[in-house]
Amino acid sequence: MATIQEVAKKAGVSAATVSRVLNNRNSVKEKTRMRVDQAIRELNYEPSVLGRNLRNSESRLLLVLIPSISNPFYTEIINGIEDTAIGKGYNILLCETDSNPKREAIYFNMVRNRLADGIILMDPTVNRKNLHDLACKHPIIQCSEFDENGTISYVTIDNELAAYQAVKHLIKIGKKKVALINSDEKFLYARERRSGYEKAMKEFGLPIESKWIRSVEQLGFESGQQAMRSLLNEADMPNAVFAVSDVLAIGALKEINSIGLKVPEDIAIIGFDKISFSNMTHPTLTTIAQPMYKMGCISATMIIDKIRGNDVESLILDHELIIREST
Amino acid sequence: MATIQEVAKKAGVSAATVSRVLNNRNSVKEKTRMRVDQAIRELNYEPSVLGRNLRNSESRLLLVLIPSISNPFYTEIINGIEDTAIGKGYNILLCETDSNPKREAIYFNMVRNRLADGIILMDPTVNRKNLHDLACKHPIIQCSEFDENGTISYVTIDNELAAYQAVKHLIKIGKKKVALINSDEKFLYARERRSGYEKAMKEFGLPIESKWIRSVEQLGFESGQQAMRSLLNEADMPNAVFAVSDVLAIGALKEINSIGLKVPEDIAIIGFDKISFSNMTHPTLTTIAQPMYKMGCISATMIIDKIRGNDVESLILDHELIIREST
Repeated sequence: MATIQEVAKKAGVSAATVSRVLNNRNSVKEKTRMRVDQAIRELNYEPSVLGRNLRNSESRLLLVLIPSISNPFYTEIINGIEDTAIGKGYNILLCETDSNPKREAIYFNMVRNRLADGIILMDPTVNRKNLHDLACKHPIIQCSEFDENGTISYVTIDNELAAYQAVKHLIKIGKKKVALINSDEKFLYARERRSGYEKAMKEFGLPIESKWIRSVEQLGFESGQQAMRSLLNEADMPNAVFAVSDVLAIGALKEINSIGLKVPEDIAIIGFDKISFSNMTHPTLTTIAQPMYKMGCISATMIIDKIRGNDVESLILDHELIIREST
Repeated sequence: MATIQEVAKKAGVSAATVSRVLNNRNSVKEKTRMRVDQAIRELNYEPSVLGRNLRNSESRLLLVLIPSISNPFYTEIINGIEDTAIGKGYNILLCETDSNPKREAIYFNMVRNRLADGIILMDPTVNRKNLHDLACKHPIIQCSEFDENGTISYVTIDNELAAYQAVKHLIKIGKKKVALINSDEKFLYARERRSGYEKAMKEFGLPIESKWIRSVEQLGFESGQQAMRSLLNEADMPNAVFAVSDVLAIGALKEINSIGLKVPEDIAIIGFDKISFSNMTHPTLTTIAQPMYKMGCISATMIIDKIRGNDVESLILDHELIIREST
């Protein structure tokens, strides 16, 4: 088989340049790159990872671990991560973990094995020890979810405050029977948003009724529909709903529409995230806007700073209440 | 630094077993794996890729290349790929390429470098030569998009026939002025669906008017809204719209609703894909159901067969016309 030296000779460049092309460094001119690529093809050269000194070289790859790509919340964050990372010469590998620690471990190992330079983690913290073992030696930051008692840098929003404002808004427009459709409380954001819901209810002297609280395992339209169906079956029906995700709120809205009740007159509804769908519904959905794209950009900047050996500080970004037709 | 032999000794297993744990092979019992993991931690052992004989070992990773994760069409395919691949002991890395050959090349190189075992490609064929060079030596299959003149196995649907049926349905309910909102014709599916649209129009003796055809660059709600806005500005307005993606159709629907026209009375509308949101709109959207999850499962089976050295055949799956309120 051809060697890297033979490829270099044929292309009329140094072996180091061939290596740079193989490692996709941006420093090589397009014309040179094409000449090297052609020499590689003509000589049938197969670059081997074994030829790369992985200990000293960057992979220029970042892993982004997300619980589920079906949730548009994550896709908007990823757009921000990619735009920023690519601008800084890094590429992204997306890893869907289903919040499963076993699947997470496989991706953690890729960083241990230097196949990727660092991790942006959006999973809930299920195994603190594994996470902190990795963070001791390898670059990792958390986005949206984070470990309250940990030392890993993160970027997020104030979920408790945002939920408090959402529920307060429902109460202010005259709704006193506010239901909560929450997501799985393994997520920190779900625990925080529940606590914001309870804080607002208490502040206005309203009872926190377990009959008006539902928790779903999967974030899909169907889960929102099912939760709403079950709330509508209560003898004492709520007249407002705070759903912790737009996807759940949209499902709930569909269910309310389908039995002929009016939104917001009979039941007002507020979601969370401001995904692009939330403006396509009928009526349009009141929601809490998370700065998802910005959160992605900041995550990418943080992890690359960390890879370069810099200290990075955690950040809590602003959210906004977007009042639309559903309240 | 500790060696693999020291780890093996401490864990009371062979070095080969340690290696299997590092490579995430399924053949290692959970208990053994935990013992090895503990020895690795206690000895502060850092496995290096250099210690792996990459030429002979599988990475057990598959790359899935998609133009954009923001399109729910791809996310449902990915769910099918992941469920099947994980069941067969493979993990998935998702690579968003933006259909950019430069970004694609980086991921192609990961397979050349044996960092992944194979590729499921959903990008349009933009650089045939690069693609076929890779396919000569490494496992790759195409999903949804494929190279008409190539030799790479694929799984897809009959896009021309599906589009023909969609447009015929609009004509059959009495609509003669059918507009087309198409996606970028760099995609094979876009060229095929346009040809299905033209075939149906011709069959019923209806003129193909360029004033009723729009093409968008990005698949987002906003693109659908913009295309519809421009169609509504035509002096001679269409009374039906075939949009080649539900996302575009939902944007168009929103635009029609917002100026007070009625769907389907004033303008009927049909989408494509049957994404879950298409049932949440008001009115619900008539669409062509693609078997996305199944397409994903089959893609995963095909690529794993290919990795194992088997021949795999291309497949064209069935689609279905789902008639709902918008027609």
